[in-house]
Amino acid sequence: MSGSPKSQPQKPQSPKLLARQPRGFADRGPADIAATERMLAHIREIYALYGFDALETPFVEYTDALGKFLPDQDRPNEGVFSFQDDDEQWLSLRYDLTAPLARHVAENYDALPKPFRSYRAGWVFRNEKPGPGRFRQFMQFDADTVGAPSVSADAEICMMAADTLEKVGIARGRYVIKINNRKVLDGVLEAIGLGADEHAARRLVVLRAIDKLDRLGAEGVALLLGPGRKDESGDFTRGAGLAPEQIARVLAFTDARGDNAGTTLANLEKVVEGSARGLEGVAELREIAALVEAAGYDDGRVSIDPAVVRGLEYYTGPVYEAELTFTIAGEDGAPVRFGSVAGGGRYDGLVARFRGEAVPATGFSIGVSRLLAALKIVGSPIVSDTGLAGPVVVLVLDRAEIAHYHALVARLRAAGIRAEMYLGGSGMKAQMKYADRRNSPCVVIQGSDERAAGTVQIKDLVAGAEQAETTRQLDNAAYKAQRLAQFSVPEAEMVEAVRGVLAARQS
Amino acid sequence: MSGSPKSQPQKPQSPKLLARQPRGFADRGPADIAATERMLAHIREIYALYGFDALETPFVEYTDALGKFLPDQDRPNEGVFSFQDDDEQWLSLRYDLTAPLARHVAENYDALPKPFRSYRAGWVFRNEKPGPGRFRQFMQFDADTVGAPSVSADAEICMMAADTLEKVGIARGRYVIKINNRKVLDGVLEAIGLGADEHAARRLVVLRAIDKLDRLGAEGVALLLGPGRKDESGDFTRGAGLAPEQIARVLAFTDARGDNAGTTLANLEKVVEGSARGLEGVAELREIAALVEAAGYDDGRVSIDPAVVRGLEYYTGPVYEAELTFTIAGEDGAPVRFGSVAGGGRYDGLVARFRGEAVPATGFSIGVSRLLAALKIVGSPIVSDTGLAGPVVVLVLDRAEIAHYHALVARLRAAGIRAEMYLGGSGMKAQMKYADRRNSPCVVIQGSDERAAGTVQIKDLVAGAEQAETTRQLDNAAYKAQRLAQFSVPEAEMVEAVRGVLAARQS
Repeated sequence: MSGSPKSQPQKPQSPKLLARQPRGFADRGPADIAATERMLAHIREIYALYGFDALETPFVEYTDALGKFLPDQDRPNEGVFSFQDDDEQWLSLRYDLTAPLARHVAENYDALPKPFRSYRAGWVFRNEKPGPGRFRQFMQFDADTVGAPSVSADAEICMMAADTLEKVGIARGRYVIKINNRKVLDGVLEAIGLGADEHAARRLVVLRAIDKLDRLGAEGVALLLGPGRKDESGDFTRGAGLAPEQIARVLAFTDARGDNAGTTLANLEKVVEGSARGLEGVAELREIAALVEAAGYDDGRVSIDPAVVRGLEYYTGPVYEAELTFTIAGEDGAPVRFGSVAGGGRYDGLVARFRGEAVPATGFSIGVSRLLAALKIVGSPIVSDTGLAGPVVVLVLDRAEIAHYHALVARLRAAGIRAEMYLGGSGMKAQMKYADRRNSPCVVIQGSDERAAGTVQIKDLVAGAEQAETTRQLDNAAYKAQRLAQFSVPEAEMVEAVRGVLAARQS
Repeated sequence: MSGSPKSQPQKPQSPKLLARQPRGFADRGPADIAATERMLAHIREIYALYGFDALETPFVEYTDALGKFLPDQDRPNEGVFSFQDDDEQWLSLRYDLTAPLARHVAENYDALPKPFRSYRAGWVFRNEKPGPGRFRQFMQFDADTVGAPSVSADAEICMMAADTLEKVGIARGRYVIKINNRKVLDGVLEAIGLGADEHAARRLVVLRAIDKLDRLGAEGVALLLGPGRKDESGDFTRGAGLAPEQIARVLAFTDARGDNAGTTLANLEKVVEGSARGLEGVAELREIAALVEAAGYDDGRVSIDPAVVRGLEYYTGPVYEAELTFTIAGEDGAPVRFGSVAGGGRYDGLVARFRGEAVPATGFSIGVSRLLAALKIVGSPIVSDTGLAGPVVVLVLDRAEIAHYHALVARLRAAGIRAEMYLGGSGMKAQMKYADRRNSPCVVIQGSDERAAGTVQIKDLVAGAEQAETTRQLDNAAYKAQRLAQFSVPEAEMVEAVRGVLAARQS
């Protein structure tokens, strides 16, 4: 009954696969890798100086161990990539480096020194809608102190954040570490009648509305605190449904910043009037401010700013954010602040999920690719001098002599010179093009004539390119210039000659 | 009708979460991280010297882009961790670094220099049954040349593998890079009548049987080539069902190694007699052997060994394996060879899956944690000298003086000395214990007396521990010894005094 006769089986033509990456994932080339590696090494140096030790946790954790603390869980999978193990248990790719740290501490509690100071650099994954500059795999570099109840641990991390930014090349005055306290926000919420357990979900909506202050301004946040907000694309985000006087109080909180820490703290005290928890938060901020002042970081490096709340649900006390204050061209061309490159806070409840008892902890996290982007903008030497030189390429003109060409390459490498033999199947012209593409400083050429004479030709590609430019205007000197960029030496002197070309290039 | 009355809602008691890692995943501490990082830097140096450039691909790829090339696909999920994207497409965690490279090359083909030489270090994931030393997340360090049709590319990688092992501390004579060629095996299979397409599955069984030669010996492999084999646990593995004379021919192939490359090649020529493809494979091996000999690597560093086939299906030509030849104690205490730490081969068909045309490629992959384990056994300086010193700890005896203690720490850090203030909530004794646990060289102590006198006490923990040992025998000198390990200096001289303790420790 089928139309295709059995005698002529449809041989499955294997269709050509499309070579593509999943959205939100990206490859990285040598310059980016080298710059990142150098930036991480600088950060590591500061963290080590502060007494933090390296730690790594795996990419995969039990889903329940990670918990659900992500903001904007508007996707079916709630922001994480998850899959089932063969014993039916759910596993997830880590979405940050804090939840796995809590698991690590709880699992090894008795064996760890307390306080436990660790730093961790690594990739994390978010199952979110990717966009420009918004990836589903990105790197964070965290430092955390677990087991330190006093807010001097928070103050220390904020000052370390400042030192770290300066170490990687962000000049003083072009950044600020802002500190706030969730307890103060709790006090405000208490004061407007949202303190009870039953309002937990609404409190979260308020929290995330405030977290968008930077992006949406006070009017936008007021809409998200009240009836809701429609964005440019027409998407509507439901609001917290607060009354105007409630909204006013929340905005008074975010706007409480004064000219100095003393004024800010006095303003905050007024906003949380009547809330014990709010006052506790203000007292903690006062303690932090005193430490920051004593250490001299109150010169604009570290500052109290009630507009900072951080979107993650697990914070329980001080929260902080590293903001770069210089402007860049925004999407519409108008200048905008570069903004946040790192943030963190105190999360006394995360380890408690495993241990039953509260374990005080505080830490912060650098967005690695965001900070790297900033370093490119300010022209930090970390990213501008990549130090990547191409290899010297030994051309292959006579395939029967491969072993000899290889011996030439081996001699260069033995002298510590980055070098390779051309391994493709193409002719001289393509080989020269290849060397150009590899950014080679020079090529080594040996045809049958040179071989018979026991010599090699060395062609300086940098000098050659410069001279080609010159001879465009000065045609009668062309031949001579070409001779300068390419010269012959006895084979035994090849290494010295190549060294000379490399040295000329560096000077 | 329900037994639970509505007036008494069962308040959900949140059960304490178990802090645990999924099987086959592991955390890593500072010593392991530092040793790995140092080993990777050494490998990178050799790869760069050979003209390879860094490349990184993401952890997640489309499942179809990765293909199914894993051996031992005895798990429901066929060896990979997979999950569906919100557009229903299947994504997988990469199981090696070769399949993603093929995708990268196909996707960027026109923009890349050809040959394209890249190295990539990164974590890969296998959804397999974990066991001792067998992890589901592990690191590989690969180098590949794509677009090089000649086997001189394979020869180069084998010699680079030798240089790499020596660079990280494996002495010459304690390793061998073994080379074989899949085409020779194809010739053998042709010769025993398994050449046709319909025998593809059986050929794979033969391939994987040979790959177990190291572990099972010739008798075990003969069973896997024939009727099948029951292992110690009683599990039965089905065999390829070959007849005795077919098995004999396959084993003659794996046993074809002679005293030198010439003898081995002659033996192989006999085994593949009558197969054009087999002879092509022997000719390629002959070419590689000539290059290896010309470069002087035939001194035992690189050698042809027909027993090497590699388990992965995608290899199409030369295959190679780096084996460490020294012995360690096996599970039963008897000495066994350390064995393979790296391997690879030519995979001319992997990029073709995307491009339709064959793109010649060859590369190899180091098992990072296996090589690191080997370095520990041979006592390579890379892993023995971790260079990790603990921080100087400033004790906190008077909480009202936190700002001043912090200033002391800041002064040490400003002098480049790794230091921290004790941030926990415990007393003096616990703080000393903490410093011991952190491997601190010394602690700085300032109580109210010292503060009034403008001094600090410095307690040298290393000298202290040594003297405590001495005074166990020499009780009457105990007091004096303690005084030596702990001394008082003016606060202004603290940095110099700590430097003195650190210098004494290093000498």
